[in-house]
Amino acid sequence: MFKESTSESWNFRYGVEAPILPEAITPFLAHRSVRRYTDEPISEEVLSGLISAAQSAATSSNLQSWSVISIHDPERRQAISEACENQKQVLTAAVFLVFLADLNRIGEFARSKGVDPDGLDTIEMFTVAVVDASLAAERLVCAAESMGYGICYIGALRNHPNKVKELLNLPGMTFGVFGLCIGVPAENARADIKPKLGQEEIWFRETYPDTINSSEYDTRMSEFFANQGMSNDETWSEKSGKRVQTSGLSGREMLMEFLHQQGFLGR
Amino acid sequence: MFKESTSESWNFRYGVEAPILPEAITPFLAHRSVRRYTDEPISEEVLSGLISAAQSAATSSNLQSWSVISIHDPERRQAISEACENQKQVLTAAVFLVFLADLNRIGEFARSKGVDPDGLDTIEMFTVAVVDASLAAERLVCAAESMGYGICYIGALRNHPNKVKELLNLPGMTFGVFGLCIGVPAENARADIKPKLGQEEIWFRETYPDTINSSEYDTRMSEFFANQGMSNDETWSEKSGKRVQTSGLSGREMLMEFLHQQGFLGR
Repeated sequence: MFKESTSESWNFRYGVEAPILPEAITPFLAHRSVRRYTDEPISEEVLSGLISAAQSAATSSNLQSWSVISIHDPERRQAISEACENQKQVLTAAVFLVFLADLNRIGEFARSKGVDPDGLDTIEMFTVAVVDASLAAERLVCAAESMGYGICYIGALRNHPNKVKELLNLPGMTFGVFGLCIGVPAENARADIKPKLGQEEIWFRETYPDTINSSEYDTRMSEFFANQGMSNDETWSEKSGKRVQTSGLSGREMLMEFLHQQGFLGR
Repeated sequence: MFKESTSESWNFRYGVEAPILPEAITPFLAHRSVRRYTDEPISEEVLSGLISAAQSAATSSNLQSWSVISIHDPERRQAISEACENQKQVLTAAVFLVFLADLNRIGEFARSKGVDPDGLDTIEMFTVAVVDASLAAERLVCAAESMGYGICYIGALRNHPNKVKELLNLPGMTFGVFGLCIGVPAENARADIKPKLGQEEIWFRETYPDTINSSEYDTRMSEFFANQGMSNDETWSEKSGKRVQTSGLSGREMLMEFLHQQGFLGR
């Protein structure tokens, strides 16, 4: 459904003309969040294929410190969409997945062999598990998009972690990092490619620069907001700044409490 | 260079016959870590194209809480390879990238607009930044692999975070999550597709199961270790259990100290 050329995608991202690039890169530039889907289901076989793509991603020391739960039961889907602030794509997507940072499995396996896995409560292992879950998810996403599906990550899965734990029977040392909706994009999906920071503000040579500048991107984003009919009276920098104030975190400022309960991050 | 069919990749991953799957998924199943490269360089344009793939990944609330530093200078490359325990692929790869969790930029931008970004010190925002960096990296990796490059993530970047900070001039609220080597695979790369957990041990329906079982995977991994000429006297579960003991973390059990210094994770 989304068929931009490399130069069209580049222009949406950066507002300038693209260099000449190998065609192989084209599909990777066309990502957008898709929140409206057709009724078309995704078969068990295709879903299993997508999981195999996720499992083919790199994982630190081959520990495979992540898991994924697919929610099929309509009542559980309804309950989890409520836990995600009623985002309707959670209900309407053909597939809804919850990606877990999972240090429970490796801990269980170690103990079954008489090994005490006493390093699991470190921020290092928490980071490993979050990275593993993210690499797996994004490889699955790239595979799904190459097959014509649209996706939407759901960070709101972290808004009510105790509810998610209860709904999914999560043991200690597991944590729902994000949700993922997958489906065939609806004709009226209205999913435009979003502008991104100029490369010079995110890709540095040799060392981190002493100064970075938001004005070029703020200008492009103001045009984008206007084109989308979104409020344009604040710049991207201002909106984003408010988003990262404690009051903008939708309750997620309490996440450490949940993670401690789950046995993560003793040190 | 790596041209397995879907059914060949599936057989390497799971030791069983593959279902029939859309061909589009094939390239996503063939990932392996590649640690030996030819001398062929990667052009600035291709590298810029790869960065645009990374920037096309989803990012939480469009905050783009990650950055990437490319290391070209031979002395700095040497120094960073030493900080990564002298892994030689860090030296020999055509490109070496450091992916940062970056809450500095959004903080700077917010303050420049008079907004106090007082939620940045939460585990929530740390998680957002680590996820953002990981999604960006894995999309770049999928694009690079589709163009025939081989890659290797470098988790040892976290072994000496203070050295990395010094070498790359990292400001507070940034953190090198992992390194990434990219290059053309050498003929003798010896990079086999690695077996992974059976899907039933990592992909759950509806809820997390009460029991999980390592024996089927331990058996397959023992065969894999034997075929690779690796020590086979311990199972994967035992090796992995020792890897997640404090004594197996290569100093990374001290990571929290560094992250606190950098201003992360006050709460």
